[in-house]
Amino acid sequence: MPEAINRQILLKSRPVGEIKDSDFEHVSTPIPTIGDGEFLARNLYLSLDPAMRGWMNDSDSYIEPVQLGDSMRASSVSIVVESNNPDYKPGDKVVGMGNWQDYVVYGPKDMHRLIPKGLPLPLTNFLSILGITGLTAYFGFLDIGEPKEGDTVVVSAAAGAVGSVVGQIAKNMGCRVVGLAGSDEKCAWVKDELGFDACINYKTQNVAKELFKNCPNKIDVYFDNVGGSILNDVLGQINVHARISICGAISQYNSREMPPGPSNYLTLLTKRSKMQGFIVTDFVARFPEAVQQLAQWSIEGKIKHKEEVVDGLENAPVAIHKLFKGTNQGKLIIKVADEA
Amino acid sequence: MPEAINRQILLKSRPVGEIKDSDFEHVSTPIPTIGDGEFLARNLYLSLDPAMRGWMNDSDSYIEPVQLGDSMRASSVSIVVESNNPDYKPGDKVVGMGNWQDYVVYGPKDMHRLIPKGLPLPLTNFLSILGITGLTAYFGFLDIGEPKEGDTVVVSAAAGAVGSVVGQIAKNMGCRVVGLAGSDEKCAWVKDELGFDACINYKTQNVAKELFKNCPNKIDVYFDNVGGSILNDVLGQINVHARISICGAISQYNSREMPPGPSNYLTLLTKRSKMQGFIVTDFVARFPEAVQQLAQWSIEGKIKHKEEVVDGLENAPVAIHKLFKGTNQGKLIIKVADEA
Repeated sequence: MPEAINRQILLKSRPVGEIKDSDFEHVSTPIPTIGDGEFLARNLYLSLDPAMRGWMNDSDSYIEPVQLGDSMRASSVSIVVESNNPDYKPGDKVVGMGNWQDYVVYGPKDMHRLIPKGLPLPLTNFLSILGITGLTAYFGFLDIGEPKEGDTVVVSAAAGAVGSVVGQIAKNMGCRVVGLAGSDEKCAWVKDELGFDACINYKTQNVAKELFKNCPNKIDVYFDNVGGSILNDVLGQINVHARISICGAISQYNSREMPPGPSNYLTLLTKRSKMQGFIVTDFVARFPEAVQQLAQWSIEGKIKHKEEVVDGLENAPVAIHKLFKGTNQGKLIIKVADEA
Repeated sequence: MPEAINRQILLKSRPVGEIKDSDFEHVSTPIPTIGDGEFLARNLYLSLDPAMRGWMNDSDSYIEPVQLGDSMRASSVSIVVESNNPDYKPGDKVVGMGNWQDYVVYGPKDMHRLIPKGLPLPLTNFLSILGITGLTAYFGFLDIGEPKEGDTVVVSAAAGAVGSVVGQIAKNMGCRVVGLAGSDEKCAWVKDELGFDACINYKTQNVAKELFKNCPNKIDVYFDNVGGSILNDVLGQINVHARISICGAISQYNSREMPPGPSNYLTLLTKRSKMQGFIVTDFVARFPEAVQQLAQWSIEGKIKHKEEVVDGLENAPVAIHKLFKGTNQGKLIIKVADEA
């Protein structure tokens, strides 16, 4: 049952380095009322993503920073409870930017999309394999990475929500896939469950040496979630006409100072290669095509994924640390309310 | 008249840091004889290029290093003097890799192409505007930079053989063009003679500030010849969907240690942009199309260029330093022998 109040977690101060609990304020406000063309939805699940760290900074990026005093931005699955928009009826489920709160009002211009009815997959999938992370893997790998059968593909954060999907798409395409992850347990999952050809534990192994051993034909595609020294090691071993898809740089998001860039970047010249960043929302017109394909692969068992659901909106500011420590087991999701 | 001997300048040792005279050995050898399908040509002009520094290193690159004891690799314009190849007759002029020597033997597999007869342009142009530098500007800017009318284009080494051509093609396309060069004199030439909108003297001005002032709509295309801090400053001011064409990194070629990479590279992510290296020989099938277009622009006065011709093969090892000091005035060419 919806609470009579709207719990919200506001960004109170911009974190310096790591996120602290004191950067947020927990408040209770009245449930918002809706105007013409708007609808009210109750958040059921929230997504926690590494990119959120960047949204807390007051810097020029692909998206406006979260304003101090606003509820923390997050994507969510929610259920419509009241509507002045004829396209959305109470009971409809939507995925959008619902933020760290119980209730969200969507106007006609806000980004959200209706969840198709009847798919034999859980709702949380729309925050993982069928949500921004799955879509990020799909477009960032296929459109920016331009993989071909037989290519050697390297994926960092291979056990993560995005990396694990990238690697499985690559395997489905007939690529040799080498992952990087931060524990032997994650590496075992990536190899034994997801079918990667190899996985390097970047915390205990020599990354450059292991890449050399596991990529005898050099690296054609690198899907980068982490930046830092791993990106540099990969750049040192790329093939001619390699494609580096820059999806993120989680190793650097909490840095207080600008870390050095990859000193091996000149292999882009000597190997006539490209390094390209992207944002999944550039592909929004093609989301339905991708959701359909990802759902199909998921139903057929050709893409497996894991979700870790943490119960309780109030736990979001603590749970988000798991992403930066690497202790989450798959896509990290906060459960805000029961579906029924 | 051809000498009775073949003067050659051999690479004796691999330079550490800057090139030294003692890295070369001057020898005189017999004029080589030709076998089946080969032809002998006399070098008339040699090209001196920054990339030659890389060829002297024993490192994995887009082309094999020059072997110690071999004549130093260089592109050249030469005239056929004797031929066992029915496609090449004495008197024909060819452009190819003639090296630092008087005579070169071309076999069927060696890279060379016939110079078309009847163009109202000097032969040296086939080492500059119609040679590798002009072709590098053409493909590196148009194919990798993907410029559109109205784009803001930044070009480093703007007074150089490649950069000056890039900027003029950009102006012909209706772009705003900002150059970077190492002296007020070069900047004046670039603005007043070539029609760039602005030129920054990177030795005396604050590059980041001047880019900010001269690129009010941020930077859409950067054609990079220099690397280092200028690349980093540009990365800090790119527009969404910017294209960075990596042509060279002359600021770093003489480094003894690996210099740091561009710490601003993550704008590739936040601005969904790409950075791509290329080599002109990837476009060899389209050279005739480009030569025709560049010759046309040149004849119509839509592309101006400068050549600095230094007389005498023996002066090549000294003259090459001009490239790294930035004291050359346009494309640097060595005259080896008279045309007639």
